[in-house]
Amino acid sequence: MSKIRHALNTRRADDFAQWYQEVISAADMAEESGVRGCMVIKPWGYGIWERIQRLLDARIKATGHDNCYFPIFIPLSNFEREAEHVEGFAKEMAVVTHHRLIADGEGGLIPDPEAKLEEPLVVRPTSETIIGDAMARWVQSWRDLPLKLNQWANVVRWEMRTRMFLRTSEFLWQEGHTAHENADDAKAHTLRMLEVYRAHAEEDLAMPVVAGEKPEHERFPGAVETWSIEAMMQDGKALQAGTSHYLGTNFAQAAGIRYQSREGAQELCHTTSWGVSTRLVGGMIMTHGDDDGLRVPPRLAPWQVVILPMLREDDGDAALLEYCERLRSSLGAQWACGEPLRILLDDKPGKAAAKRWDWVRKGAPVIVEVGGRDMDGGVVSLLRRDNLWGENGKPAFQTPTIEDAGQAIPAMLEEIQQALFAEAAQRRDANVKRGVSTMAEIEDFFATNDRYPGWVEVQWSRPTGAALDKVVEDLKALKLTVRNVPIGAEEVDGACAFTGDPAVERVLIGKAY
Amino acid sequence: MSKIRHALNTRRADDFAQWYQEVISAADMAEESGVRGCMVIKPWGYGIWERIQRLLDARIKATGHDNCYFPIFIPLSNFEREAEHVEGFAKEMAVVTHHRLIADGEGGLIPDPEAKLEEPLVVRPTSETIIGDAMARWVQSWRDLPLKLNQWANVVRWEMRTRMFLRTSEFLWQEGHTAHENADDAKAHTLRMLEVYRAHAEEDLAMPVVAGEKPEHERFPGAVETWSIEAMMQDGKALQAGTSHYLGTNFAQAAGIRYQSREGAQELCHTTSWGVSTRLVGGMIMTHGDDDGLRVPPRLAPWQVVILPMLREDDGDAALLEYCERLRSSLGAQWACGEPLRILLDDKPGKAAAKRWDWVRKGAPVIVEVGGRDMDGGVVSLLRRDNLWGENGKPAFQTPTIEDAGQAIPAMLEEIQQALFAEAAQRRDANVKRGVSTMAEIEDFFATNDRYPGWVEVQWSRPTGAALDKVVEDLKALKLTVRNVPIGAEEVDGACAFTGDPAVERVLIGKAY
Repeated sequence: MSKIRHALNTRRADDFAQWYQEVISAADMAEESGVRGCMVIKPWGYGIWERIQRLLDARIKATGHDNCYFPIFIPLSNFEREAEHVEGFAKEMAVVTHHRLIADGEGGLIPDPEAKLEEPLVVRPTSETIIGDAMARWVQSWRDLPLKLNQWANVVRWEMRTRMFLRTSEFLWQEGHTAHENADDAKAHTLRMLEVYRAHAEEDLAMPVVAGEKPEHERFPGAVETWSIEAMMQDGKALQAGTSHYLGTNFAQAAGIRYQSREGAQELCHTTSWGVSTRLVGGMIMTHGDDDGLRVPPRLAPWQVVILPMLREDDGDAALLEYCERLRSSLGAQWACGEPLRILLDDKPGKAAAKRWDWVRKGAPVIVEVGGRDMDGGVVSLLRRDNLWGENGKPAFQTPTIEDAGQAIPAMLEEIQQALFAEAAQRRDANVKRGVSTMAEIEDFFATNDRYPGWVEVQWSRPTGAALDKVVEDLKALKLTVRNVPIGAEEVDGACAFTGDPAVERVLIGKAY
Repeated sequence: MSKIRHALNTRRADDFAQWYQEVISAADMAEESGVRGCMVIKPWGYGIWERIQRLLDARIKATGHDNCYFPIFIPLSNFEREAEHVEGFAKEMAVVTHHRLIADGEGGLIPDPEAKLEEPLVVRPTSETIIGDAMARWVQSWRDLPLKLNQWANVVRWEMRTRMFLRTSEFLWQEGHTAHENADDAKAHTLRMLEVYRAHAEEDLAMPVVAGEKPEHERFPGAVETWSIEAMMQDGKALQAGTSHYLGTNFAQAAGIRYQSREGAQELCHTTSWGVSTRLVGGMIMTHGDDDGLRVPPRLAPWQVVILPMLREDDGDAALLEYCERLRSSLGAQWACGEPLRILLDDKPGKAAAKRWDWVRKGAPVIVEVGGRDMDGGVVSLLRRDNLWGENGKPAFQTPTIEDAGQAIPAMLEEIQQALFAEAAQRRDANVKRGVSTMAEIEDFFATNDRYPGWVEVQWSRPTGAALDKVVEDLKALKLTVRNVPIGAEEVDGACAFTGDPAVERVLIGKAY
């Protein structure tokens, strides 16, 4: 049995869901707000989201998109136009019906009956319909195409069961919306943005993903094709971490997005939409967290290096702080992972050991402790958060000289970014089961791998209609879903695991968030 | 009469309100959305807002605040707790009463009567009450204070008359919220953030402001003190461009924000809040715009330098583009106004002159045209947007060599930033009338200065109660309001312009947006 005294109460292996809640609380990332299904994102959680925003926004701008802002309210009539779309969302939208409150005569407030809206407004669950209206105004000719827009916004979907970052009634996201001349161009763009998401997940979040197409029954309401990136969490479940949709002419038809073609004809645009949300933060937690709390990849860490002077409120503190400042300034001019280093000298009051464990739980990539003895020896005591424990069951402090630390830390951050990705990729690769060829074998695999199920990759015939319904139902009985049809999977050779018909492609199957 | 053919149809002097709308449209910044009172912020307008966000966010973080995110929905009961606060907002809030839509049986949708919320939710008009709840959870002891939070968010106030950027039902803003041990600390912080706003307005937006305290009747609902920065628009009206509030213990009492003091007693916190919004964009337009459109201060410009190759779709274009690239790369490594230059090489199709005027209307600070003749001569044709017209009534092109242009442009951007501020400050200073000492003189001043009223600075006795009501009413009859009590105004010496009592301070009076 390990001698290690971990910094959390719950082990991942014991209760992954409980562990997840505990990480969020121990790392001080977010909490329940008291408003149904909505969370408060606290500074450390929001700081990570700001990093995601900054890095992804640069990728979105680099692919030629402009940021805009569209109204949060969508008139009811917009939803009535696109039947399949409203069908997909109508069950879970917040509806504004009044624009004023009045006193109820008993010390309380009620919506003013005199201030009832003629047409109720929906708080956007997504903005296809309202942005479609704008595109219809903005697009006249093929010269205006492609039109490539993006918005960072809050959206609301009335969820019955919520879990912080993963599923909340209000969440923060970006939604990209583009209009194109034809299907080929729009489909190519759908895949281009899927690739942007893959690169962002893998390079920035250090979270390996499988990019692929969603099967028909898992499409976004109103979409012709839906593509996703799927990440494997440490409990083996899949997290859909981003989606990119080719919408055909469905929304263009509903909103009237038409253009004069090169040949002078009036044509409907082909549109796309794609989004990722604060759910990514949840994915990052469940990819990298360990039994001591969060581990934030250096590219996402609000602070990459935390310097902790072990202050004792005596005369030596000024010298100690000066020594810490020396390290900070030698690091201050350096870059890692493509940006200037982000360094915090945390000289707030508090016991040094308690502060160390706070930063361990928060997952700062490099923690540097500096005590009087370090200073006397010209060294610092440095912890790599990705590799916290020594073989003796104690924190694995390294004690380089202060000069060496100043030089080595930027390279160390690059290493941590790579190491976190490699660790997650290895775990993912080890837990995708191939060679399963029947429903019975699928059932058997998940029955014997209940704690850490992972995914199976099987061949199928891409069934439709009733045949697809049966597959979905059989899988559902095992709490399984088809995640996606991975891009770049091996060629098929044999029969569909479900129908026995000749297989046409491979699909990933797993439990999912 | 001027020979100049301006790029807008409307002159400021002819119809300032119409001119304002035309600038927004001609610069392609925003448009009506079709959703009541809400606008769509288009890429150029949103790009300017992103610059404001980035610059102000850095100032807010530098003063020790952390960004967070709180729910958009506020339970009705939160408003019932703080009577004065709800009184100030109850007339204009969007109320969510249902969480689902169903078909009405006639092809339309209605809120589902089965999905009526037990307690209606208000779409936040501001977040004091919900953030107060969080502060009550987070603050235990004096060691947790000051607690300094900030949020970037959308808010909704149901406005009857809207005007783009200045007053819209939904708008974007930041709201800072802090909790302190005592009144002195909280009041000092209220003024510190007012100073952050002043510096941001003057240094980033190049918009001179007067910082001061609002009179009692203009306070934020629930505040003990409200301070503002007021900017003079080119029509002489005042724009309240930012406010900072000392809230006393009012919100702490309502939400239960208590801490254990250094002496071990349970005490109420003293809180502050402060915000600026997309209204700043409107202020920037009305401060710097001219009869040719917008003029964006370099620190705010999404693109500071726009290079326009005069393409002719013949064989010479490749050489011309290469020549433009030379300029871009010589500029690319340089900085101005504290950041790397933001340069656009606009090689989109279109007639060169039309594109020039588009960028003039958008207000890009420096426009560089490059034609075949420029290339042959080794020069470029450069326009400074802040000083567009020559004495001959033609655009005042400068034609430095390409090498000189590459060197001179960063300094030119700094000059433009300073020149726009100086121009606005001079206009403001010339239009604050002093030495007015009675209500009759105030009336006379505004009667004879109807087109360009400016402001008057008068002495008053800080009347309260009925005496204040009378002042407010008399001013209102002239469409005037007290803007604020400027910090650093001259000493008083004499009687109040309204009551005849001994004056205690000076106030600014003007028409306002």
